Amino acid sequence: MRTRLASLFLLAIISALALATPHAFAQQPPTPPPSVVYPPELISTLTKIRDAALTSDYAYRQVAHLTENIGQRISGSPQAQQAVEYVAAELRKLGLEVTLEKVMVPHWVRGEERAELTTFPGQAPHTSQKIILTALGNSPATPPDGITADVIAVNNFDELAALGREKVAGKIVLYNAKFDERMAAEGRAGDSYQHVYEYRSKGAQTAVALGAVASLIRSLGDADYRLPHTGYSINAGIPAAAVTAEDAQLIADLAQQGRVTMHLVLTPQTFPNTQSFNVIADLKGSEHPEQIVIVSGHLDSWDLGTGAIDDAAGVAVAMQVANLCKQLGLHPKRTLRVIAWMDEENGTAGGKAYGEEHKSETANHIAAFESDLGAGHPLGMEGNYKTEAVPALEPFEKILESIGANLLQPAADPGADISPLAAAGVPSFGLIQDNRTYFHYHHTPADTLDKVNPHELAENAALIAVYAYGIADAPKPLPH
Amino acid sequence: MRTRLASLFLLAIISALALATPHAFAQQPPTPPPSVVYPPELISTLTKIRDAALTSDYAYRQVAHLTENIGQRISGSPQAQQAVEYVAAELRKLGLEVTLEKVMVPHWVRGEERAELTTFPGQAPHTSQKIILTALGNSPATPPDGITADVIAVNNFDELAALGREKVAGKIVLYNAKFDERMAAEGRAGDSYQHVYEYRSKGAQTAVALGAVASLIRSLGDADYRLPHTGYSINAGIPAAAVTAEDAQLIADLAQQGRVTMHLVLTPQTFPNTQSFNVIADLKGSEHPEQIVIVSGHLDSWDLGTGAIDDAAGVAVAMQVANLCKQLGLHPKRTLRVIAWMDEENGTAGGKAYGEEHKSETANHIAAFESDLGAGHPLGMEGNYKTEAVPALEPFEKILESIGANLLQPAADPGADISPLAAAGVPSFGLIQDNRTYFHYHHTPADTLDKVNPHELAENAALIAVYAYGIADAPKPLPH
Repeated sequence: MRTRLASLFLLAIISALALATPHAFAQQPPTPPPSVVYPPELISTLTKIRDAALTSDYAYRQVAHLTENIGQRISGSPQAQQAVEYVAAELRKLGLEVTLEKVMVPHWVRGEERAELTTFPGQAPHTSQKIILTALGNSPATPPDGITADVIAVNNFDELAALGREKVAGKIVLYNAKFDERMAAEGRAGDSYQHVYEYRSKGAQTAVALGAVASLIRSLGDADYRLPHTGYSINAGIPAAAVTAEDAQLIADLAQQGRVTMHLVLTPQTFPNTQSFNVIADLKGSEHPEQIVIVSGHLDSWDLGTGAIDDAAGVAVAMQVANLCKQLGLHPKRTLRVIAWMDEENGTAGGKAYGEEHKSETANHIAAFESDLGAGHPLGMEGNYKTEAVPALEPFEKILESIGANLLQPAADPGADISPLAAAGVPSFGLIQDNRTYFHYHHTPADTLDKVNPHELAENAALIAVYAYGIADAPKPLPH
Repeated sequence: MRTRLASLFLLAIISALALATPHAFAQQPPTPPPSVVYPPELISTLTKIRDAALTSDYAYRQVAHLTENIGQRISGSPQAQQAVEYVAAELRKLGLEVTLEKVMVPHWVRGEERAELTTFPGQAPHTSQKIILTALGNSPATPPDGITADVIAVNNFDELAALGREKVAGKIVLYNAKFDERMAAEGRAGDSYQHVYEYRSKGAQTAVALGAVASLIRSLGDADYRLPHTGYSINAGIPAAAVTAEDAQLIADLAQQGRVTMHLVLTPQTFPNTQSFNVIADLKGSEHPEQIVIVSGHLDSWDLGTGAIDDAAGVAVAMQVANLCKQLGLHPKRTLRVIAWMDEENGTAGGKAYGEEHKSETANHIAAFESDLGAGHPLGMEGNYKTEAVPALEPFEKILESIGANLLQPAADPGADISPLAAAGVPSFGLIQDNRTYFHYHHTPADTLDKVNPHELAENAALIAVYAYGIADAPKPLPH
C-alpha cells in the first residue's frame, strides 16, 4: 500500500485551525442537515449483510487460498497470473460478469542478496559482520561477485548533501532514517511511513547524483526482528536495498568509530514489461446497470512474504461483497463492480490503466472503495467525498456502530488504485483499520496468513459491504 | 541457554500439594530462623555496589563490543577466539589474575540453507513456495544440490510413531509441535521451551529410526516474524533444520490437503573438534584466597545473531562485578572468580571441563552464579542451595528490594555451565529475569545489541554483584 494519511493529517490541521479562529467561536455552529431516511427494507437488508459478513468465513478462505495455495504474487510472476485466473473463476462462480482488462506491468525478479562488512573497527583477522538486507523493487544488480566499497551512514538527505560529491563518490550510502515507532504505536502508522517513504523511492536517485555506487536504506517498519522491508523504488542505475533496522544501526555505530567497508551482492533481473490484468467483475444493477460502485483490493503483492495483509485481505473483502449478495439473494439497483487490481506495489499500473480506459464513464462511477491497509479491526471509513454526501452516509455509520466501525472522516487520497478516480471527482473511500502493527510486517517475509485475524477480516467485510451495497441500492446516487 | 524452570515447576507443585494436606493446615507453620546479621560495613558496601552498578555503563559497553565489534561467537569460530582474548585482556586491565583453561569444542560451520515446496495442492506450473529455515547445530549436510522428498507433518512424537516405518521411510519429517505462547507470556517461558526442547535435540534421532531422510522442527520460540530459531541438536546422520512457525503451519495446512514435496539444501560443514578456552579471572580473596565465589556467563553464542541476550549480557554482568570492585577499591575476603564459559550452546564443553578439572576443589567453591536468561529486568535469584543458607541470603534480598529484584526461590539446575558444580553440592544460583520476550529472539538473527536495555542490564549487574560480593565477604562461608 501507499498511504494517504499524511494528507488526512493536513486536513485535520486545517480543520483545527479553522475551528480555533475567534470568528468560528463567535458564531453558532451551523445546524447539520438531517440524515437521509432510507426505505426500511434497505436498512433491514444492510443489517442482514452486516450480520452475514460477521459469521461467514468466505473472505478468510480466499486469503488462505491466495497465500498458501498460490503464494507471493509480484507483478509479472506466474503466481500473479494464477491469482488473476483464480479470482476470475471464483467471481464467475458467484454469477458475476468477469472481464480481464489488460495492463502492462514491470517484470522484476529477485536474485541472490547478501552483504557483509569486510572492514570495521575492532575486527579480528578472517572475520566479517553479516548484514541482512533485501533488494528494493526495480533495483539493478551488482556484478555477480558483488561490489566492495566503503560505507557512509547519514540520517537524512541534508546530511548527505552536506558531505558533497567528494566524500560520497565511489561509496555505498546508507540512509539511517528512522521510522517513528511511537507515532505508529499511537495509530498514525501512515504518517510514520510517509516521513521516511522518499528514502526508499528516491534514495538511490539522490545518492547516484553525488557519485555513490549503491544506496541502502534502513527498513521502513517498526518491529525489532531483524526483518528487511522491500518496496517500490525508482531504478537510478545503482543497486538499492533495505537493510534491517538492526543492521542499519550496527553500520551507523561502527562508521562512527572508523572505516567500514561492505561487500554487497544483489542479482535481481529486470525483464521487459509484461502483460497482466485487472480482474473486473460486475454484479449488474437491476435498475441502473450503467451506474457503478467499485469494491476493490490489489491482487499483486511483494515477493518476500505471501501478501496476506498486503493485500489478499483487500481482495477477499471485495469478493465477499459479491458473495454476500449471492448468499442473501440480493440484486442492488446499481452495478456492484469487484476489482482485483494488478501492480499496486510496483508502479500502480492497474489503477492508472483503469483510470485512463474508463475516463469517459467517470460520471457513471458513483463510488469507489479500496481496502489496502491490512485486516485489522476496522474503525470506520475515510474518503474523498462532498460534504453534501454525509447525510446519505450517516445511516451506514449507525448500522456499523455495533462493531465499532462507525467513524467517517475525510481523506484526500483514500487508496492508490482508486486515486485516478478520486482525482476525477468520484467519491472514493478507504477503510480505516487498526494499523498499529501493520508496519511490523509490511513488505517483509512475515506478511503471511497467520497475520490475518478471521474475525477482524469479517468485520472489514461487513464495513465495506454495508457501505457499498447501501450506495448501490440507495434511491438516489451519492453526490459526485 | 538451557532451562531449569521445569524442575522448579515440579518443586512448586510439590510445595502446593504439601500445603494442601489437612495435616499441614492443622499445624502452626514453623518459625523461620532469623536472618544473619552482617557487619554494618558489609551492608554499607553492598548498598554502594548496588548503586554504583545502577549508574555504570561498563556492562553495556562490554555487550556492545562483543556484539558489534566482534559479532557472532559460535564455538570454534575466529570470533569466539577473539572474544576469549578480548575478555581476558579486559579482566587483566581490572587487575585480575587471568587463566585460559583449555576446552575442546565442536567446530560446526553453517553453509547455504534454502528450501522450497516443489509440489503442493493448488500449485500452478513453474511455481513453488519458499520455505524459510535454518540448520540446527551439528546437522550434517544434504548433497550440494539438495534432496527432494515428500513431507510428513506430525504434531508430536506419538503421531510419528503411529505412522510407522512404512509411511515415514524416505520422507522428510516435520514436527509441528507448538511453543506455548500463552505460558511464555505469563512468565513461564522456560516451561514453554522445555515442553518442545526434545523435538530440537532428539527429533532427527527419532525420525531416522523410522527411515526418514531429513528432520524439520517448528522453531522453538513465540514471536510471529517468520524467524527460524537454531540450537543444539544431536547429529543423527540426517539433515536437521528449524523452519519458522509460519512455514511449519503452511506445510501442515498444505499436507492436510494433499501431497507436499520439498527440495532442501543445507550445506553445513562439521570439522574435527578444536581447542578453545574458558576465561577464568580471579580477584584474589584477602583472607581466604582458596575459597571461591564464581560469577559467570557464556562467551560463545549461536551464529545467526550477535548473541547479545544469549549471552554477552551474562558475561558482561559477571565482568561488571570485578569492575565495581576496582572502581570502589574493594577486596573481599574470598576470591571472586569471573568465568566466561566456552561452548554452552553446542554441548556445554566448557562447564563440563571445569567441573572435571576442579573436582578436587569442590569444597572450596563457596557459591557459583550464572546469568543466562537474557538481560530483562531481574526479579531476584533462584538457586540450588540448602535451606540453612536462606538466613545468610535474606540481607541481600533486602538490599535489592528497591530495584524489585528481591525474590529468592529454589531451582534444581540454575545454569547449564554451573550444573556440574551444583550436582557436586556447590550452592548455585541463576538470575530470575523477566523473560517474557526472551524466546522471541532466542537463537535467531534478531538477538542483537538493541535487545539489551541498558538500565535493565545494570539492574542485573547490581543483583549478581550484591549476592556475589556479599557471599565473598561474609564472615562465614555459605553452608555447602
